[in-house]
Amino acid sequence: MDAITPTVTCGPLPASTKVHRPGTLNPEIRVPLRQIAVHPTANEPPVTVYDASGPYTDPSVTTDISAGLPRLRHGWRGLEGRVEQYDGRHVKPEDNGFVSAAKATPVFPLTHRPYRALPGKAVTQLALARQGIVTPEMEFVAIRENLGRERMRTALARDGNPFSATIPDFITPEWVRDEVASGRAIIPANINHPELEPMAIGRNFLVKINANIGNSAVTSSMAEEVEKMVWAIRWGADTVMDLSTGRNIHNIREWIIRNAPVPIGTVPLYQALEKVDGIAENLTWEVYRDTLIEQAEQGVDYFTVHAGVRLQHIPLTVDRVTGIVSRGGSIMAKWCLHHHRESFLYEHFEEICEICRAYDVSFSLGDGLRPGSIADANDAAQFAELDTLGELTQIAWARDCQVMIEGPGHVPMHKIKENVDKQMATCGEAPFYTLGPLVTDIAPGYDHITSGIGAAMIGWFGTAMLCYVTPKEHLGLPDRDDVKVGVITYKIAAHAADLAKGHPAARLRDDALSRARFEFRWEDQFNLSLDPETARAYHDETLPKEAHKLAHFCSMCGPKFCSMRISHDIKAEARAAGMAAMAERYRDGGDLYVEARPEEAAE
Amino acid sequence: MDAITPTVTCGPLPASTKVHRPGTLNPEIRVPLRQIAVHPTANEPPVTVYDASGPYTDPSVTTDISAGLPRLRHGWRGLEGRVEQYDGRHVKPEDNGFVSAAKATPVFPLTHRPYRALPGKAVTQLALARQGIVTPEMEFVAIRENLGRERMRTALARDGNPFSATIPDFITPEWVRDEVASGRAIIPANINHPELEPMAIGRNFLVKINANIGNSAVTSSMAEEVEKMVWAIRWGADTVMDLSTGRNIHNIREWIIRNAPVPIGTVPLYQALEKVDGIAENLTWEVYRDTLIEQAEQGVDYFTVHAGVRLQHIPLTVDRVTGIVSRGGSIMAKWCLHHHRESFLYEHFEEICEICRAYDVSFSLGDGLRPGSIADANDAAQFAELDTLGELTQIAWARDCQVMIEGPGHVPMHKIKENVDKQMATCGEAPFYTLGPLVTDIAPGYDHITSGIGAAMIGWFGTAMLCYVTPKEHLGLPDRDDVKVGVITYKIAAHAADLAKGHPAARLRDDALSRARFEFRWEDQFNLSLDPETARAYHDETLPKEAHKLAHFCSMCGPKFCSMRISHDIKAEARAAGMAAMAERYRDGGDLYVEARPEEAAE
Repeated sequence: MDAITPTVTCGPLPASTKVHRPGTLNPEIRVPLRQIAVHPTANEPPVTVYDASGPYTDPSVTTDISAGLPRLRHGWRGLEGRVEQYDGRHVKPEDNGFVSAAKATPVFPLTHRPYRALPGKAVTQLALARQGIVTPEMEFVAIRENLGRERMRTALARDGNPFSATIPDFITPEWVRDEVASGRAIIPANINHPELEPMAIGRNFLVKINANIGNSAVTSSMAEEVEKMVWAIRWGADTVMDLSTGRNIHNIREWIIRNAPVPIGTVPLYQALEKVDGIAENLTWEVYRDTLIEQAEQGVDYFTVHAGVRLQHIPLTVDRVTGIVSRGGSIMAKWCLHHHRESFLYEHFEEICEICRAYDVSFSLGDGLRPGSIADANDAAQFAELDTLGELTQIAWARDCQVMIEGPGHVPMHKIKENVDKQMATCGEAPFYTLGPLVTDIAPGYDHITSGIGAAMIGWFGTAMLCYVTPKEHLGLPDRDDVKVGVITYKIAAHAADLAKGHPAARLRDDALSRARFEFRWEDQFNLSLDPETARAYHDETLPKEAHKLAHFCSMCGPKFCSMRISHDIKAEARAAGMAAMAERYRDGGDLYVEARPEEAAE
Repeated sequence: MDAITPTVTCGPLPASTKVHRPGTLNPEIRVPLRQIAVHPTANEPPVTVYDASGPYTDPSVTTDISAGLPRLRHGWRGLEGRVEQYDGRHVKPEDNGFVSAAKATPVFPLTHRPYRALPGKAVTQLALARQGIVTPEMEFVAIRENLGRERMRTALARDGNPFSATIPDFITPEWVRDEVASGRAIIPANINHPELEPMAIGRNFLVKINANIGNSAVTSSMAEEVEKMVWAIRWGADTVMDLSTGRNIHNIREWIIRNAPVPIGTVPLYQALEKVDGIAENLTWEVYRDTLIEQAEQGVDYFTVHAGVRLQHIPLTVDRVTGIVSRGGSIMAKWCLHHHRESFLYEHFEEICEICRAYDVSFSLGDGLRPGSIADANDAAQFAELDTLGELTQIAWARDCQVMIEGPGHVPMHKIKENVDKQMATCGEAPFYTLGPLVTDIAPGYDHITSGIGAAMIGWFGTAMLCYVTPKEHLGLPDRDDVKVGVITYKIAAHAADLAKGHPAARLRDDALSRARFEFRWEDQFNLSLDPETARAYHDETLPKEAHKLAHFCSMCGPKFCSMRISHDIKAEARAAGMAAMAERYRDGGDLYVEARPEEAAE
C-alpha cells in the first residue's frame, strides 16, 4: 500500500447542521438531514433539506479515505439467512488495463470478502418488497423523503400539476415498499456497498440527479476522482456514475465505492472493452460476464446495460444526422455489425439478471440509440430500442431485479413529453433516467443550460432522475468548477420539477428564501440558496462591506430606490391605516375616482 | 465637449461575414444578416443567422462613437408630409439629476432637432399599417426574419407545436403589415431614432430578447454603459433597456441612443423620480409628462409605463410573501397610497398615448405587480393588474399606439402557460414581454438559469420577447461577463422556443452544427455556436494543440473510444454491405438469431 491518501473537501455548508433521525421499525438506522438555521429575527424554525453529502459535511466525523466510510448497512437487519460470504474473484492484470507498476493506482488498503445471495434466495429490494418485507432501506428512504414535513402535514396546500404521479402528503415505509414492489421505484443498494445511505429513484419521490465522474485515456488520477465524487455530493448529486475508461479502472473504483455514501453506477462495457484492448469486435460474453462479477463484488449499485441495441435496429441509425452518440451503443452496434449477430447483451440478458439478482445490482437499461441532435430526436431508432427496453424490463422484473430506463439526450421542447409518456407505457412505469435533454444544439459551452431546460421539463413530466450535463459537454473534460456548476444546474431543474409537480415539501425552501429576501436577511438568503458561496461572492462584488449585509437595500437600486423597501413601507402604512378594510370601497370598480381627502393630500 | 470617446468592442465574430440584402419595395434599405462560413469539406452553403449587432461587427465600417451611427431611416420613404422638425425641449439641470460640472457626463457632441407628427397626422407603424401602408420598416423586418430561407421553402418540413401561433413559411412585407395592423406585433421605432435597424416583436416572429443596462446610484459611467449596449447586441440582444437611476441620466441616454442600432426602452418613471429627489409622493403628472417628451425627443423607442398599478390593487399585495418587487410598481403604489388617489399614470393614460403617438414610442405596459416569488405567482394582484393592462391596450390601440405587455417574474413551471393564455385573452394578443420567469427562488447566483428555464417555456407558449436575467440578479450589478452570460442564456431560451414552435428557419443552425459535430469539424462547431470564444476555450483546456482541432475524436473518450468515430465506421460498413437491404431480413422480429456466416465471423 502506497502512502498516498487523497484529501477531500469536508465541513458543513454555511449555517448548516447535519441531524440524524432514527427509524421506528429499525432504531439502528440514522437518517441524515440538513438543517439550515435562519436569523433569530425571522422567528422561524430552521429549514430542513435533503442531504446527499454523506459524513463529509458532518464536523463530528473524522474522514479517513484510506479506511473508507463505516459499513453501517451490515449492521442492519434484513439479509440474515439469505446471503453467504465467499472468496471473491481475484483481481487480474486486465482489470486495471495491464497498467505498469510505476503508473498503478495504489490498491485500497482494506479488503472485504464479498457477499452474494444463497442459491435460491433473493436479496433484491424488489424481491423483499414483493414478499411484503419492509427493509431498513425502505424506512431510511421514507424518513429521508419526508424532510421533516410531518410537522406541517395539515398546513400545506397542494399546488402543482403532477400529471399521473401520486405523491402522498406523508411517506411511510410501507408506501415505499409498495412503490418498490410495483417497480415504480428502485433503491439501488448492492449488498456489497454497505457504506451506502439508501435513497430511492421513482416518479413519486423527490426528483434525483446523477453526476458523472471518471478518468479517461487522456487524463486521470485516483485522488481527483474520489474528490470529484465527494465534491459532487457536497452540492447535491444523489448518485454518481464512474465512467472511467483508461487504466486503473478497478483500483480507482474501489477507492470511490469504499468512500461513497451514494449509489455508484457504472457502464461495465467500458471496462470490458479495455480488457480486449479497445477493439469492439473482440468483446465476448465471457469477458463481459467476468466484468459484471468483478464490479458486483466491489459493490457497484447500478449497471448501465445497453442490451436494447439490437442488430435489427442499426439500419435505423444510418441516415441520422449524428448516428449513434452513446459510447455503449456504438460499441455494441459495431460488434453486432462486425459479427452480423444479435447483441450478446440481448442474448444473455437472463444470465445478466441472475448476476444482478445475486448482489442486488439495479439495472439502468441504457439508451444506446438516444438521439445526439435535435434532428434525430424521437426517431424510429430511438423508439425501437425503447420497445426492446420494455421487453427487457419484464424479463428483469420476472427475476426480481430492480430496473430504471435511460432516456435522451437531445430533444426539442415540443417532443419531450412524448418521451416520458412512451417510456411509462412501454416500460411499465419503471423509473426514467434521462440525460438532460438538451433543447437545442447551438450552444456548446452552455449545455448545462440547454439541457437544464429540458431536464426541468422532463422531470416535471415524470422522470425520476436527471443525469447532469456540465458546461464542458461536447468540448472537454469537466473540472471541479464544471462539476459544481453541473450539479447546481441540475438541482435547480430537479427542484423546479418537484415544485411544478406540487411535491408537498418542495416550496418550503423557496418560501423561506423569499421571506429572507423580502426582509433583507442577506445572510439567510445566501445560506438558504443552493450555492451559498457564489451568492455571497456576487453580492460582495458590488457591496463588499459587512454592514451592507444588514442593509435594507441592495446594489440594484441603491437605498432610495429599493422596491422591496418601498413595499415594506406600503405594508406598514397599509396596516396602520387599516388598508384592507378601507380598500373595500375601491374594489370591483366602484367609486374609483374619489377625491383625495384634504388631510390625506396634505400629508 | 469633452475629449473622452469610449471605445467599444468591434469586429466580426469568427468565420462570420455581414451581408446586406436590399429591399424590393424600398431599394434604399440594406438589411443586415450574418453568414457563418463552414469548412469546404462540408460542401454546404454558409449558415445565415439573424444579426442584431449593428455596424460594430462590420469590418468595413469605422466606428466613431462621438459621431453616432448613420441616421439611415431619415433617408427612407414614409414620413413625408406627416412630420415637422422643431426646436426641442431645452435640457434642464434636473434632467441629469443636478449633477455638478465636475461629475457630469459630457454632452453628446452633435445635436439633432427632433421630429414630431404634424397635428392630426399619425406616424406610428400601427397607424400606417391600418391605412394599408407597407413601410420600409416592415419590408426591412420581413427580409430580416426570413434569414435567407426563401432558398429552401419547399424543402423544410414543419416540425413543432406552435400552439395558436401562425408562422408562415415565408414572410412578406404585406404579412408584416397585417401583423402590425392587428396589434399582434410591434416595430418599436421612434421617428427620432433614425439610427435604428428595425425589428419586430410578435408571437409569429422569431422570439426576441432584451438586455438591461444602466448605471445606478451605486456605480456609474457613460463609457461603460455604451460599451454594455454594444456588447449586449454583439451577443444577440434584440433590444436594450436603459434602466439608469443615478445622475447624468439624460446625457448617458443620448450617447446610448445615438449609437444604438437596436430599439432602446426606458422606464421614464425612474428619471421622473430622480427629478423629485427620489421621493415617490412628490411625483406629479407634470414632471412625468415633461420626462416623456424629453425622452421621446431623444428617440427612446419604447416606454415601460406602470399604469396598471391602481389604488384598488394595492391591498391585494399586502399579504404577499414578497410584496411589490417592481421598482415602478412600488413607486406608484407608494404614490397612490400616500395620496389615497388613483394613479396619475392611469388617470392621464390618454394624454400619454397622445405623446407616444406623436413620436411613435411603443408602449411596454409594465407589470408593476408581478410576483417576486414562487409563493406569489398568478395571484389576485397580478391578474387584477393584467385586466387593467387589457383595458389600457384598447385605449392605446384606439390612438394608433403600438403596445406590448410585460409579464412575470417568478412562476413555477405548472403556472407558466396560464400567464400566456390569460395575457392573450385579456390583451387581444398584443405581444407579451416577460422577465424570465424564474421557476424557483432557491438559486441566487444562478438566476439566469432558473429564469432561462421559464423563459424557454413561456417563449414556446407564445411570448414574443424575453427580458434577460443575469447571474447577478437579486445580488448585485451585472458586469461585462454577466451581461454576456445573460444574453447567451436568453438566446438559448429564445431559440429553443423557436424550435419548439416549429419556426421554419430555426433548425437550420442546429442541423449545421450537429453535422459539424458528427464530422469532427471542430472549427465549424465553434463558429456555429452562440459563443464561439467559450466553446473554443473549453475545448482547448483539455486538447490545446492545433492538430486536435482536426482530430477525429475529443477528450471525452479519447481516440479509441469515440462513439462518433465508431458510428462513422458503422455507417461506412453498413453502406458497403448494403446494410439497408440486408437488414430487411432482420426487421419485424423475424429471423433474429441467425448464425453468423463463417466468412463474417472470421473477419
